[in-house]
Amino acid sequence: MACQACYPKGCLQLTPLLQQLIQSLRCLPGIGPKSAQRIAFQLLARNRDGAKMLATSLVQAMDNIGYCHSCRTFSETELCTYCSSTRRDKSIMCIVESPADQYAIEQTGYNGMYFILHGRLSPLDGIGPADIGMDLLRQRLHAEETVREIIVATNPTLEGEATAHYIAQIAKHRQISCSRIAHGVPLGGELESIDIGTLTHAFAGRGVIQDS
Amino acid sequence: MACQACYPKGCLQLTPLLQQLIQSLRCLPGIGPKSAQRIAFQLLARNRDGAKMLATSLVQAMDNIGYCHSCRTFSETELCTYCSSTRRDKSIMCIVESPADQYAIEQTGYNGMYFILHGRLSPLDGIGPADIGMDLLRQRLHAEETVREIIVATNPTLEGEATAHYIAQIAKHRQISCSRIAHGVPLGGELESIDIGTLTHAFAGRGVIQDS
Repeated sequence: MACQACYPKGCLQLTPLLQQLIQSLRCLPGIGPKSAQRIAFQLLARNRDGAKMLATSLVQAMDNIGYCHSCRTFSETELCTYCSSTRRDKSIMCIVESPADQYAIEQTGYNGMYFILHGRLSPLDGIGPADIGMDLLRQRLHAEETVREIIVATNPTLEGEATAHYIAQIAKHRQISCSRIAHGVPLGGELESIDIGTLTHAFAGRGVIQDS
Repeated sequence: MACQACYPKGCLQLTPLLQQLIQSLRCLPGIGPKSAQRIAFQLLARNRDGAKMLATSLVQAMDNIGYCHSCRTFSETELCTYCSSTRRDKSIMCIVESPADQYAIEQTGYNGMYFILHGRLSPLDGIGPADIGMDLLRQRLHAEETVREIIVATNPTLEGEATAHYIAQIAKHRQISCSRIAHGVPLGGELESIDIGTLTHAFAGRGVIQDS
């Protein structure tokens, strides 16, 4: 506790468990010291049952959610529901950086297969092909001969582009068509407020206007 | 899971435990569905140990943090460190709405005693004197005859003001001086951007300029 000692320098008389809770809450992305303190006080005052329910959910999720052996997304079973489904188009595979990206793409109505990198190639950070599952991807493309097209949906960053090129090489080697999702002006975006990089991409990726 | 069924309406193939975790995270104040999803994905991908540590802290805090029998703040022991301290000024008592308010006041360097209401009088919501510990306050003022001044630091809302007046009555009855913290223009605030209510308060609470 030691708060009499360091008073009035700011370490106040919070109970040890409260200090520990505030510290632990900071593992949540986007939660700083001030928010953590507010959350801790509010949970104690108003929602102790909810907090204990959250604790249970956290433990269950962290202990039981693993990775699909085929596409590497989060899964509680060896094969995820995407990979074990019989209703999805097995000739097309979308490659994304994270399960969150997969979730976003799923909302567009895409109904093919997936492969999750859990990262991107980044030699400076020591992240090589093995770290983003390239061995498993090669193995999978070799074992299943159903895939006819790979759509690379990595983020439009330098690393994302490098990863896309690396995957394109693998696809070329196996004679599988490989495409990249379009990057350009978002719907509802106004040209004057778009950054130059996006606008350059939009120019380079321009398409012919079809006769209607 | 039932995601094939309701597809493409938005209920996607998240695993049951992931859905449960996202739902549970929403008990945190200020966390909506989108943030909950982002937090769940990030914890699973990057910080499983932190998440399990958080679960432990939540359970320990919710189970073991109770209320001080004297001032009603959060405490793991019968008497909190404020009430059991021998170094604090027992002749002055600050009354606040919540432990978070107490924490804020403690940071000003205040070194007296506290009393926490855990709310404010609000007849419309069915919150009466008994719900904010007025019985305990009376009992405490009766038992300890050390208190010479009560400082009411409830919020400057309608309910906060009503609560302050109620406490002033109790103090008057026991011939204890009772004051209210000043409400006015905050330091660094600019007059033109201050709301009318605050400015009215600042006018009403004006003080004589002392000769230096």
